[in-house]
Amino acid sequence: MPFPLPATVFLHPNGEMDGRTRRYQKRFNDLAGLFLDEEAFRTVAAERGDVVAYQVDEYRPSDRAGDVIFGTSTLEPGRIGEEFLFTRGHIHALGDRPEIYLCQSGRGVMLMELEDGTIRAEEMTPGKLVYVAPFWIHRSVNVGDEPLVTLFCYPADAGQDYGIIERAGGMAALIVPDGADGWKQVPNPRYRPRSAAGAA
Amino acid sequence: MPFPLPATVFLHPNGEMDGRTRRYQKRFNDLAGLFLDEEAFRTVAAERGDVVAYQVDEYRPSDRAGDVIFGTSTLEPGRIGEEFLFTRGHIHALGDRPEIYLCQSGRGVMLMELEDGTIRAEEMTPGKLVYVAPFWIHRSVNVGDEPLVTLFCYPADAGQDYGIIERAGGMAALIVPDGADGWKQVPNPRYRPRSAAGAA
Repeated sequence: MPFPLPATVFLHPNGEMDGRTRRYQKRFNDLAGLFLDEEAFRTVAAERGDVVAYQVDEYRPSDRAGDVIFGTSTLEPGRIGEEFLFTRGHIHALGDRPEIYLCQSGRGVMLMELEDGTIRAEEMTPGKLVYVAPFWIHRSVNVGDEPLVTLFCYPADAGQDYGIIERAGGMAALIVPDGADGWKQVPNPRYRPRSAAGAA
Repeated sequence: MPFPLPATVFLHPNGEMDGRTRRYQKRFNDLAGLFLDEEAFRTVAAERGDVVAYQVDEYRPSDRAGDVIFGTSTLEPGRIGEEFLFTRGHIHALGDRPEIYLCQSGRGVMLMELEDGTIRAEEMTPGKLVYVAPFWIHRSVNVGDEPLVTLFCYPADAGQDYGIIERAGGMAALIVPDGADGWKQVPNPRYRPRSAAGAA
């Protein structure tokens, strides 16, 4: 395969990226099973099941080791029960590959977790960039009132494993309102440590 | 070496990056020999030799293959003779490693060149992101009136070769005013094709 050529893309303030090679969208219906409050989810899905919850525009020059993939993620605001709306989340299939996220607009949390359940949550506001280190599962959470727009970049051979969160009953922490216009993390009652999940 | 941990940095509008692991600065005196008009350079250097022409703030989690390095570059506006001020420029020591640059503020040109002298120049304005493909020598040029601030990200094992430009008498094109508040590229009269330079 020949090497890719130089390219330019344009990031609009609303998160759309001109020049992308791919766009994917997750609608509320696609998020079934991810939130603790299943009744609240059914209510939202009945009203807005076909509405886009988040959208990813990416530019993928190649899948070659040593190349990079970049793009934008735009996550709507809102809550499902007590939980702020989040992206499905993943760990890289090549687990030692990192990722960076630069907050362009909105207010969010990058929720990160090691396989043993260790949690780290970093607030994202415009200008804040989070380095998601190797081997950290990660998910974006919108804790604000407007769309959360981030720029991401990661090694092109990283790949994604989305099942690692599902196998544990979700991530170990939930991000919920703190009662004072902010957010806090609380334990996820459905979380099962991955060693036990593996034995089940 | 253990794997790095998650980290956050903050990008200020002026290009400074809180949380950086390294900053380096190039002063006008450090740019001797890079511009065609040597008399104009001497005049600028006499007046502002110790002034910072550009500054790079970086976050380097590791140098490991598969990791990424990111940061900000802030290039002052100005001209040396006819040429707009530019960064020294480089190709990656591992030539097949790409780099992305997102313009945060200001107005610039990403000047790219293949080893055979093929030139590509892409204008950078806020929101524009340039993917510098593998094997393209690249340099930032400030064609505006305010500092050019960019965010960059590249594979951590890429390395830099700065000599490839010097060996050819500069890049094949110069970026100069077009006489109408814009810029244009013109041939560099000092440029020597690299095959000939190698034989010299």
